[in-house]
Amino acid sequence: MSAVPTGVVNVGADLFADAVEAQATSVTRVDWRPPMPRTEADLAAVAADPLRRDANNRALAAMLGVTAQLVDVVPAAEALGLAPGQFLHAGPPITWDRASGPLRGALMGGAALEGLVDDPEDAAALFESGNGVSLEPCHHHATVGPMAGVVTSSMWMFVLEDPATGRRTHCSLNEGLGKVLRYGAYSPDVLVRLRWMRDVLGPLLQRAVRTVRDGAGPVDVTGIVTQMLQMGDEAHNRNRAGTLMLLRDLSPAMVTSGLDAADVAESLRFIGGNDHFFLNLAMPACKLALDAARDIDGSTMVVAMARNGTDFGIQVAGTGDEWFTGPAQVADGLYLGDYGPDDANPDIGDSAITETAGIGGFAMATAPAIVRLVGGSVPDALATTRRMHEITLGENPRWTVPVLEFQGVPSGIDVTRVCRTGILPQINTGMAGRVAGVGQVGAGLVNPPAEIFPMALARLAERARARA
Amino acid sequence: MSAVPTGVVNVGADLFADAVEAQATSVTRVDWRPPMPRTEADLAAVAADPLRRDANNRALAAMLGVTAQLVDVVPAAEALGLAPGQFLHAGPPITWDRASGPLRGALMGGAALEGLVDDPEDAAALFESGNGVSLEPCHHHATVGPMAGVVTSSMWMFVLEDPATGRRTHCSLNEGLGKVLRYGAYSPDVLVRLRWMRDVLGPLLQRAVRTVRDGAGPVDVTGIVTQMLQMGDEAHNRNRAGTLMLLRDLSPAMVTSGLDAADVAESLRFIGGNDHFFLNLAMPACKLALDAARDIDGSTMVVAMARNGTDFGIQVAGTGDEWFTGPAQVADGLYLGDYGPDDANPDIGDSAITETAGIGGFAMATAPAIVRLVGGSVPDALATTRRMHEITLGENPRWTVPVLEFQGVPSGIDVTRVCRTGILPQINTGMAGRVAGVGQVGAGLVNPPAEIFPMALARLAERARARA
Repeated sequence: MSAVPTGVVNVGADLFADAVEAQATSVTRVDWRPPMPRTEADLAAVAADPLRRDANNRALAAMLGVTAQLVDVVPAAEALGLAPGQFLHAGPPITWDRASGPLRGALMGGAALEGLVDDPEDAAALFESGNGVSLEPCHHHATVGPMAGVVTSSMWMFVLEDPATGRRTHCSLNEGLGKVLRYGAYSPDVLVRLRWMRDVLGPLLQRAVRTVRDGAGPVDVTGIVTQMLQMGDEAHNRNRAGTLMLLRDLSPAMVTSGLDAADVAESLRFIGGNDHFFLNLAMPACKLALDAARDIDGSTMVVAMARNGTDFGIQVAGTGDEWFTGPAQVADGLYLGDYGPDDANPDIGDSAITETAGIGGFAMATAPAIVRLVGGSVPDALATTRRMHEITLGENPRWTVPVLEFQGVPSGIDVTRVCRTGILPQINTGMAGRVAGVGQVGAGLVNPPAEIFPMALARLAERARARA
Repeated sequence: MSAVPTGVVNVGADLFADAVEAQATSVTRVDWRPPMPRTEADLAAVAADPLRRDANNRALAAMLGVTAQLVDVVPAAEALGLAPGQFLHAGPPITWDRASGPLRGALMGGAALEGLVDDPEDAAALFESGNGVSLEPCHHHATVGPMAGVVTSSMWMFVLEDPATGRRTHCSLNEGLGKVLRYGAYSPDVLVRLRWMRDVLGPLLQRAVRTVRDGAGPVDVTGIVTQMLQMGDEAHNRNRAGTLMLLRDLSPAMVTSGLDAADVAESLRFIGGNDHFFLNLAMPACKLALDAARDIDGSTMVVAMARNGTDFGIQVAGTGDEWFTGPAQVADGLYLGDYGPDDANPDIGDSAITETAGIGGFAMATAPAIVRLVGGSVPDALATTRRMHEITLGENPRWTVPVLEFQGVPSGIDVTRVCRTGILPQINTGMAGRVAGVGQVGAGLVNPPAEIFPMALARLAERARARA
């Protein structure tokens, strides 16, 4: 697959063409790219599928029609029916023996949080034995999880709802950066923080979210994402403005919750000090939108991209719940402290649901300051958003990029366009340490393994041929 | 002065040149502009002044070296020694007989707030008589005021301090948009809000600001401006991210203030619902920086631009406290509701101190969403920041524009460059209704009257000749 171009293509030429376009001169782009190897027959079969055009129109419209409201905060036991010993994780299905360091670390910490073991180190034997423990993807339980994405029964979950259908998605509360469970850390301070979130932050947020919901109406998560994109956030690795708007919307009800003022102040400081807090609302909002496009026969639109630290998987609207998987790649980016490329685990987390919905790496143009975190240059960031329009079905009229004259973000990744152009989706991501217990080592840019798109295309072609 | 170009110049050509530059091709800009009429001799005299270069270097460095911290919130009586009957206003000095509608309306409301009259309508006779009332510019009292800028003795003031020198500047608390005193409205709801700010919001902010100051250290106003510019604010007509960061920094101490939880919640809602709240911190931060550059003999740098609704005035580092004034212009922009150009008062307010310090209209490139409020297009916004670099002495290394590859904002308006190029400073501004009592009617783009720059240049030349 090394012949497939994965980097930034034609930046200079794109900028030049953009400037010409801005002057209202007609311009035709001529940068033809070869299709991915051995995809011609499948591309032809899918192109001839009479269902395809309408199916893709419906899939895109379904995704763009969803709005997400924050309607509750409840423990996973209640929201998802999880029992102690049931563990959810990011990405496609995986077993302990193939799990990467950061996923193992997060599972070990989660087992200690649930009281299954006293010392997280003892949990490795538990997961090896499989006695009384199970692993399932978040995505199989209307849930998404950043990085390792481990969810256990006592963790508090944001509950998002589409008011038009009542459908719901879920995500845990964000712990912050550095040494945190989702990056595979499980030291005592990680568990102390998780217990404080369980005992103090979760109950307080539940009261505030319910008060707001029953008063002025639920927090409009989709609306906050709309505003974030005007405020330098791309809602994957920059969530600063989103976090502050959430605080704005919840803080009055936190103050009048009746809970201890010191606990309220500490919670305000915790959320205000964690620029990523809103990520755990952006992600389930994206999943809620994309789930509306599932199971549309003939549609070539990607409805999930997710990584478990070992495998990168996608699901497609026209192929049901099947995962198309390949090896997760290591991101190219900037490292914290003395960490370097040898310390980084391959790509992990459900957070690529943001790119699947057109934000994150797809909206880098609206968040040029992101390059200071994930690397690259400002012209690269602008060119990336432009380039993603070449592999997507349309634009989001609600989520726009001011500096691109309010163009909608590129939305609805089309498997056929990816295969036809060789352009891979661009993902911004955090990087977890390869070794269980380390935590975050950096942030960077990464792509899916190229071969999973021809795999999905082959299945789409097979189904089209079977219907013909 | 109609020969002086005041609009957006060479937008298309600028964009084209930018794209070429981005591709690292050498490019020479050839858009020579004629100097302002009858300025040649004064330009030559100032160019020959041996003090000029060093004086401008010192003025720019002095301005860029200042950081502003929020150290207190106290009533104007205490902060500035104002007695009831003493009124501060925006812009250069003016008397009641020449005051515009919105300034008169704000003074009338202020008189009622201070109990000098029961009905604001009765205050007109009081100001006409001049008995027991006085008007002075905010700028003469280490203060800046947005729009009418009326400050009375009982109003609570933000107190900003430069930690290196202990110098201080002040600004009142922002009331929100629409029908508010600073836009000339004085209806009962305006006075109810001002009394709530006096009785509830001010005391609460005083406790919170003092707690933060004495604990983790004062709120870093300059640092928040730095972040805002990465978050789509230009800190004059967009202060959304700044307001949210202020809330983040103050809300924990508001919660533990010991004041009534319902009042704290109401104050959080008030600030969170007013995207302009931070403007009243950005403005005195800019004045604190610019005041450091006052009284530097030979410097041609502008240290204040301010409007009282009738006159637009500037002060210059090398000419002491002298105001150079001309008629304030009506902004070109977007109107609220059914209002139109005939309803708008000429330009008013001290808020052009933001442009004087390199933000606001000078930083439009970092806030492209601003065009939805003030009008114009995104390419105009980018071109405006580029153009302002042609009339400024340097760049601010702290305040940068991500989309322009982190270039510093254009800083230190140079009277000689303005006269030499005919390019006028670009100001983003709110528009007040022409009639006292109306309030805000829109927002738009405006320039100073061109003739005040040759006036200032003439005085600089006179002083240079006198020294020669």
